Amino acid sequence: MLKVEKQRIGKNAVMLALLEEGEEFNLPGNWQSCRGKVGSMDSHKVVAAIETAAKKNGIIKTDVYRESHALYHAIMEALHGVTRGQVQLGDVLRTVGLRFAVVRGNPYENEQEGDWVAVALYGTIGAPVKGLEHETLGLGINHM
Amino acid sequence: MLKVEKQRIGKNAVMLALLEEGEEFNLPGNWQSCRGKVGSMDSHKVVAAIETAAKKNGIIKTDVYRESHALYHAIMEALHGVTRGQVQLGDVLRTVGLRFAVVRGNPYENEQEGDWVAVALYGTIGAPVKGLEHETLGLGINHM
Amino acid sequence: MLKVEKQRIGKNAVMLALLEEGEEFNLPGNWQSCRGKVGSMDSHKVVAAIETAAKKNGIIKTDVYRESHALYHAIMEALHGVTRGQVQLGDVLRTVGLRFAVVRGNPYENEQEGDWVAVALYGTIGAPVKGLEHETLGLGINHM
Amino acid sequence: MLKVEKQRIGKNAVMLALLEEGEEFNLPGNWQSCRGKVGSMDSHKVVAAIETAAKKNGIIKTDVYRESHALYHAIMEALHGVTRGQVQLGDVLRTVGLRFAVVRGNPYENEQEGDWVAVALYGTIGAPVKGLEHETLGLGINHM
Amino acid sequence: MLKVEKQRIGKNAVMLALLEEGEEFNLPGNWQSCRGKVGSMDSHKVVAAIETAAKKNGIIKTDVYRESHALYHAIMEALHGVTRGQVQLGDVLRTVGLRFAVVRGNPYENEQEGDWVAVALYGTIGAPVKGLEHETLGLGINHM
Amino acid sequence: MLKVEKQRIGKNAVMLALLEEGEEFNLPGNWQSCRGKVGSMDSHKVVAAIETAAKKNGIIKTDVYRESHALYHAIMEALHGVTRGQVQLGDVLRTVGLRFAVVRGNPYENEQEGDWVAVALYGTIGAPVKGLEHETLGLGINHM
Ligand SMILES: [Mg+2]
Ligand SMILES: [Mg+2]
Ligand SMILES: [Mg+2]
Ligand SMILES: [Mg+2]
Ligand SMILES: [Mg+2]
Ligand SMILES: [Mg+2]
Repeated sequence: MLKVEKQRIGKNAVMLALLEEGEEFNLPGNWQSCRGKVGSMDSHKVVAAIETAAKKNGIIKTDVYRESHALYHAIMEALHGVTRGQVQLGDVLRTVGLRFAVVRGNPYENEQEGDWVAVALYGTIGAPVKGLEHETLGLGINHM
Repeated sequence: MLKVEKQRIGKNAVMLALLEEGEEFNLPGNWQSCRGKVGSMDSHKVVAAIETAAKKNGIIKTDVYRESHALYHAIMEALHGVTRGQVQLGDVLRTVGLRFAVVRGNPYENEQEGDWVAVALYGTIGAPVKGLEHETLGLGINHM
Repeated sequence: MLKVEKQRIGKNAVMLALLEEGEEFNLPGNWQSCRGKVGSMDSHKVVAAIETAAKKNGIIKTDVYRESHALYHAIMEALHGVTRGQVQLGDVLRTVGLRFAVVRGNPYENEQEGDWVAVALYGTIGAPVKGLEHETLGLGINHM
Repeated sequence: MLKVEKQRIGKNAVMLALLEEGEEFNLPGNWQSCRGKVGSMDSHKVVAAIETAAKKNGIIKTDVYRESHALYHAIMEALHGVTRGQVQLGDVLRTVGLRFAVVRGNPYENEQEGDWVAVALYGTIGAPVKGLEHETLGLGINHM
Repeated sequence: MLKVEKQRIGKNAVMLALLEEGEEFNLPGNWQSCRGKVGSMDSHKVVAAIETAAKKNGIIKTDVYRESHALYHAIMEALHGVTRGQVQLGDVLRTVGLRFAVVRGNPYENEQEGDWVAVALYGTIGAPVKGLEHETLGLGINHM
Repeated sequence: MLKVEKQRIGKNAVMLALLEEGEEFNLPGNWQSCRGKVGSMDSHKVVAAIETAAKKNGIIKTDVYRESHALYHAIMEALHGVTRGQVQLGDVLRTVGLRFAVVRGNPYENEQEGDWVAVALYGTIGAPVKGLEHETLGLGINHM
């Protein structure tokens, strides 16, 4: 069973990604997290920025593939929310400016469920012209 | 140009959808909004619940197709975030329990941009067995 | 090399599907074709209506699978144009009213290219409420 | 309710895109339209060619994002018909040679429905080798 | 690093799914596996058949969601190979007759990689008419 | 009706793709086949490698488009199994190392079914870092 909502990994990741400069937000207990920003027309640069931040901040171990694999699929799922159909940016002449948050922890009452990872993305998507854009958001969740 | 972030339609819709029982949140100025809940294995019931709520609450006019059309595509885009690949629920043996929010207003500095609509969905997705589920979230945005 | 445009199978199929009651249009030379109508929220009924018409009119042989296979994939490709993302109708609370045309013939200068099939669909797609709909069109082409 | 078929925006856009050199076709009443050609293995160049033509010909206002947004999604929907599955060209080793038409006007009896835009694409898709190609067509429609 | 090919989980799952009546095949060492058959036009029945077999045979624990989650995504990935575009069967008027195999074990040299699961599907896909079908195959792999 | 399983084109193509260095496998009777390897982050290079091998080995005629068309769609279907959702490699920061097999022959009892083609891909997919990868497999089948 999922914990009460305030202790859910996805909601917390989204709250972190929505956080503006100067705002603060405390994650529950002993969860790990990192945040970052990425703007690009290249979808692979978005993937790389999140992976790099997660590794640098020790959210995932770099020498165990299963952790990279878990994170990768969480990123891809979050990108589906951002792109809504085709996971493409520059190829269909659009660009994104995103803040991202990665959270790792156990969101279930049952400790056997172990660690999960949530990737939240929030920002803008649109034409490669300043102002021609609207908001976009994505959330991916996976077991580690 | 989008307004400052606190006055953005997508962020506000997401905040509304994330709101728990008893919590409160004030939308900026003169925007219209409604909230609701829907749980189903039928994706068309999710679409119907949101459309019905939006019409009942006067967010969209029922006698002008363009408003229904705008809302429909915003819902579909939000469902992409929720389903992350195939917009299918029961057909791939999964079910959702969602809270939704629909917000209508002008999120741009320029008044000529007129009204836009944001649809935010937040809840759980998983097997049709209580507890076998994780969080999910989607945001769709369209010009009215 | 494709023949001159007036003798192209896709263009001719589209012209047939666009034809209104009472209008006439002559296909080039010795091509085979059939037309029909189908309205449904069930995507499989659209597929069935086209397959049935094609078989009844002798466009494809019923006892050779390769001809059914060729037609099936042409139908699926045409449905992508009609649905633009997810090949779903009622599952995402929408319905279609379509005219269809199936044309069989050789659209290439080189006779070795043999027969190809084109499936064209034209009509409306929208909410299951009269008037809440816009036009839609799809074209699928395959070698027989 | 949609107007009679001859005054429908999608059908008219398709007729324009199907028009060969030297042929003529009159759009109903006071609609705006433009036509053009684009051949590329880069899907973003197809998008750019259509957007540029629409702006140059005053079909959409360049200083109002909602008009660009409406057109962009219509283009994307038309590209679904052209690509039938994955909105990719060179990435899956294929190329297109397309004529396009953009039409803007009100296709509904009810004037409140306002302006809509239709994007029609017609041409060939295939291997990057002359002659190894078949026809393709797509139609996207959106409210402005 | 993946183990030598004969000890790879995906290859072994595929070999099991390809196995005909009366043939035998030995999985390496201490891996767990189960096999089964399912024929249906309902994609959710394919998912259910595999999940049920995996639980009944103790491949995954029924009281830990993370194991169901891992298996579910592996099944979905395998279904992508079987359906090649839209994860739909009866909705697009086609049916499958499949043999499936689920294998659980550690396919990496590094023991820290822990258990992974592979789902392989092999059989036929086609019209709901005997004989109008061709082969199909899918493989999904996930960390447990 | 499909021939007995040992004489099925898809199964035989998969067996060929699974074959390791030094192993041997005999195709039934008079079928044509070729094998090869390709590693890339560019999906178009995977397509090109298979097309080139098939042409060089006389599996398809280079001067008849219908044969290229049949092979192309079989390759695309096989790539769906390999990529499981979005037919993208480097664009989503992943790379493949694949062995492929192309088989041409008649897999049906009825000689009128003529030649079909099967494309099987087997190998690894993962991050562009040695070892961070798992297995992947795809099969595409088409009538020639
Ligand atoms: Mg999941
Ligand atoms: Mg948009
Ligand atoms: Mg084709
Ligand atoms: Mg629409
Ligand atoms: Mg994976
Ligand atoms: Mg097929």
